[in-house]
Amino acid sequence: MSQPFSSPKTRPVVAIMTDFGLGESDVGVMKGVITGIVPDAQIIDITHDVAPQNVPSGAWILAYGYRYYPKGTVFVCVVDPGVGSSRAAIAVHAGDWYFVGPDNGLFSYIFAEQTIHEAVTLSNTAYHLPQVSSTFHGRDIFAPAAAHLAGGISLHELGAPVDPHALQRINAGLPVRQGTHIDAHILHIDNFGNLITSIPLTMVPDLFNSPQVRVIFPATDTVVDRRRRFFADGPDGDRQPFIYGDSSGYVGIAVRNGNAARTLGVDLGTAITFVISDK
Amino acid sequence: MSQPFSSPKTRPVVAIMTDFGLGESDVGVMKGVITGIVPDAQIIDITHDVAPQNVPSGAWILAYGYRYYPKGTVFVCVVDPGVGSSRAAIAVHAGDWYFVGPDNGLFSYIFAEQTIHEAVTLSNTAYHLPQVSSTFHGRDIFAPAAAHLAGGISLHELGAPVDPHALQRINAGLPVRQGTHIDAHILHIDNFGNLITSIPLTMVPDLFNSPQVRVIFPATDTVVDRRRRFFADGPDGDRQPFIYGDSSGYVGIAVRNGNAARTLGVDLGTAITFVISDK
Amino acid sequence: MSQPFSSPKTRPVVAIMTDFGLGESDVGVMKGVITGIVPDAQIIDITHDVAPQNVPSGAWILAYGYRYYPKGTVFVCVVDPGVGSSRAAIAVHAGDWYFVGPDNGLFSYIFAEQTIHEAVTLSNTAYHLPQVSSTFHGRDIFAPAAAHLAGGISLHELGAPVDPHALQRINAGLPVRQGTHIDAHILHIDNFGNLITSIPLTMVPDLFNSPQVRVIFPATDTVVDRRRRFFADGPDGDRQPFIYGDSSGYVGIAVRNGNAARTLGVDLGTAITFVISDK
Repeated sequence: MSQPFSSPKTRPVVAIMTDFGLGESDVGVMKGVITGIVPDAQIIDITHDVAPQNVPSGAWILAYGYRYYPKGTVFVCVVDPGVGSSRAAIAVHAGDWYFVGPDNGLFSYIFAEQTIHEAVTLSNTAYHLPQVSSTFHGRDIFAPAAAHLAGGISLHELGAPVDPHALQRINAGLPVRQGTHIDAHILHIDNFGNLITSIPLTMVPDLFNSPQVRVIFPATDTVVDRRRRFFADGPDGDRQPFIYGDSSGYVGIAVRNGNAARTLGVDLGTAITFVISDK
Repeated sequence: MSQPFSSPKTRPVVAIMTDFGLGESDVGVMKGVITGIVPDAQIIDITHDVAPQNVPSGAWILAYGYRYYPKGTVFVCVVDPGVGSSRAAIAVHAGDWYFVGPDNGLFSYIFAEQTIHEAVTLSNTAYHLPQVSSTFHGRDIFAPAAAHLAGGISLHELGAPVDPHALQRINAGLPVRQGTHIDAHILHIDNFGNLITSIPLTMVPDLFNSPQVRVIFPATDTVVDRRRRFFADGPDGDRQPFIYGDSSGYVGIAVRNGNAARTLGVDLGTAITFVISDK
Repeated sequence: MSQPFSSPKTRPVVAIMTDFGLGESDVGVMKGVITGIVPDAQIIDITHDVAPQNVPSGAWILAYGYRYYPKGTVFVCVVDPGVGSSRAAIAVHAGDWYFVGPDNGLFSYIFAEQTIHEAVTLSNTAYHLPQVSSTFHGRDIFAPAAAHLAGGISLHELGAPVDPHALQRINAGLPVRQGTHIDAHILHIDNFGNLITSIPLTMVPDLFNSPQVRVIFPATDTVVDRRRRFFADGPDGDRQPFIYGDSSGYVGIAVRNGNAARTLGVDLGTAITFVISDK
C-alpha cells in the first residue's frame, strides 16, 4: 500500500502546487531539494498562481485535475497561511495517490472523493532538511517528504499516524438543489474569462434536456439563459453569454471568442441562482 | 519514418504550447496524462501565454523556435478557438519533427518551410482518453496522441491519412518587397518591449550595407532610421529607437535599456512601411 | 574537479534563470538546445521573471537558493544587458556547483561565498551553436556550454582560463552595522508583498533578544517595531506590519494575511535604517 512504484519501469512523479508565483526562486528551490533526493523524478507543475493564501481556491484547482496524473503520483501542495504555527504537516495516501502539505483543508475534495488508506503527520525530523525555517516549510519539510515518498519509503516512516477523520476539511460550499432552484456561486474564473460555477454537472443531469434553464446574477439583475454544447456552436459573431458543461465537471458560463467575466462584470465568489424549469 | 526514436539512448521529447496560461491546472493535467503514457518523456514548455485564441500569434511563436529542438521532438500545440466544432484534430510528420494539434493554421509556417512526410486525423479513439469532453481536447485527445507518438507508435496508427495539401494554412501576412518599399506590420512584442516586424532578414540582405533605411509608422508619423548590430552598440544613455536584426530571423526595433513598444506607442499588428534607399 | 557526475546513478541537473519571461518561446528554445545535447538532463527553472536587465536583482535571486540544488548542478543564468558587446561569456566552478553566463556581476554573491576552483571564458566555438546571433547568447552560447558541462566535459575544454580575481563583481550593497544603527535598503519584494531587507540575519543575532528594534523608513517617516517569529503569530485580524526572519536568511517585514509593500508604500531599493536598542 505504501509502495507506490512497484514496477521498476515506472518513474517517480512529483506534482507541485503552490501560491508562490514564479517570480521568486522558491519553486525552483523546492525542485532542487526534490532532485537531490530522487534524481530521476518527473516533476510536474500544477500551478503556482493559486491566489495567495486562498486555501479554498487551491483546494478546487487541485481537485479539478488530480485524477489525470499517474497512479502513485506524489502531490506536494503549499497554500499555507498558518506556516510556523501549530497547524500540522501531513502526508496522506488517498485513492491511488499521495498528498503532502499543511493540514488546513487543502485536500478537502480529495478526502471527500477518495478512500483514505493511511495518514501521518510529518513528525520524523530525519526526513526534514537539517535546518527548518519558520516561514518556508515547502522547502524544509514538504519537498523532502514528498521526494522520499516518491523515492520509495513507506508513508509510516514519515511520522506518527493520524486518524483520517481528524484531518481538516473546509466547507467547500457545494450547493444543494431544492426543486427547480440551486443557490450557488462562481468558484473559478479561467484564463479565457469563463466562469466556473460551484454546481457539479452531476447535480443537473437535465441541463441540456430541460425546456428552459436560467442563471440569475442577483447583484446585477442579469440573466443568462442560452445553452451551448461547445464553444464554436452557434454563429461566429455572437457575443451573448451562454451556459455550458465545463471540462472540470462543473456548469460554466462563457462568451464565444470573448471574456464572460468582463462581459458580465462578475468576480470570484459572486452569488448566482440557477433555475431549471420543466415546462 | 514514423519511428522517431531509433536510438535507445535518446529520450522522447514532448514540447507543449498553449494559450491556457499557467494560472490553471490545465497544463499540469496535460503533463500528467503524457507522463502516465510515456513515463520517461522530457516535457518542455514552449509557452502557455499565447494571446488567447490568437492562432496567427501562436503560429509565429512556434515557428520562431522549433528548429532548435531535437529531431523527433513531438510538438503538441493547442490554440483552438474551434474546439468541439467540426475542425479536425491532426498529427503531422514534417521535416524532422512531429506536430499534434487542431487543423486551424497553427502549423502554417512549418508546412511552408518543411517537407510534410505524412499527415493523419486523430480519428482512432483507442488513442483518446476514455471520456472526451467538448471543451478540453488538449487533455483528452492531443496530449494522449503526442504521448503515444513520443512513446514510439507509428503516425498512421493514430488515424486516417490526410492529403498534406488539404491541411489548413493561414495567410501569415508575409510582406512583399517592391523596389525600395516594403509594407509590413508588427508581428510580435517581446518581454523587453522590442518590436519584431513581419520582415524576414533574408528579404533585406542589404539592411546594414544600404546607405539609409527607414521604418515609418504611418499612424503616428514616426520614423526610425538608426541601425545597430547589437543592443550595447552606441552610447550607454542613448534612448533613441534603433533597427536591428532580431535573433528570431526578423527585422526588429529596440531601445537600449528601454521599451520600444512604450517609447513608440506601438501595439501588435501596427502597420509599418520599410524603406531602403540605395543612395 | 571538473567531473561533476562521478556517480553513474546521478542525473545531470541544469538550472536556468533569465529575465526573458515565459510569454516568449526563448526559455523553451534553450531547453530544446540543452535536451539535444544531454537528453537525460533534469532541467529546473529558477525563475524567468528577473526584472528585465536588472543584474543586481538577478544576482540576489540566484544567491538566495543555489545551495539547495544538488552538488554538480550547472546553473545557466542570463540577465545580460551587454549581450553582443565585448563583455565576456564565462563558466565557473565555484563551491560544489557550476555557473555559466555573462561576466557582468550576476554571480557576485556566489564568488563572495564560495571558493572558485576554476574559471574560463567560453571562447571555444566548438561548443557554440553553429550560428551565433548577436542578441541571443542564451540559446547560442550559454545553453550549449551548460549542456556540455552537465554532460560531462571538463570545464577547461570550454575555453581559455580566467583569473578568478578578474571576474566582474557588483557592489551588492551589503550594509555595515555601526553600533546600534544599520543603514540598509529593500533588496526584494516577494509574491506576498513581503519586504526583504539587505540585512543578513547573521548581522543581527540579537534580533529577537534585544529589548527593542525599529525599522525606520525615512522617506515616509514610518516606523515598524513589532517582531514576530512566524506569520501566524499574534491575533488573526491584526494588520500591523512586523519584522521577521525571512527564510532567505535576511531580515524581512510582513503584514499577516496582507501585503507589506502596499501597506507601507515601499518599492524595491527603498532606504531603511535599522535600530537595535539594548535597553
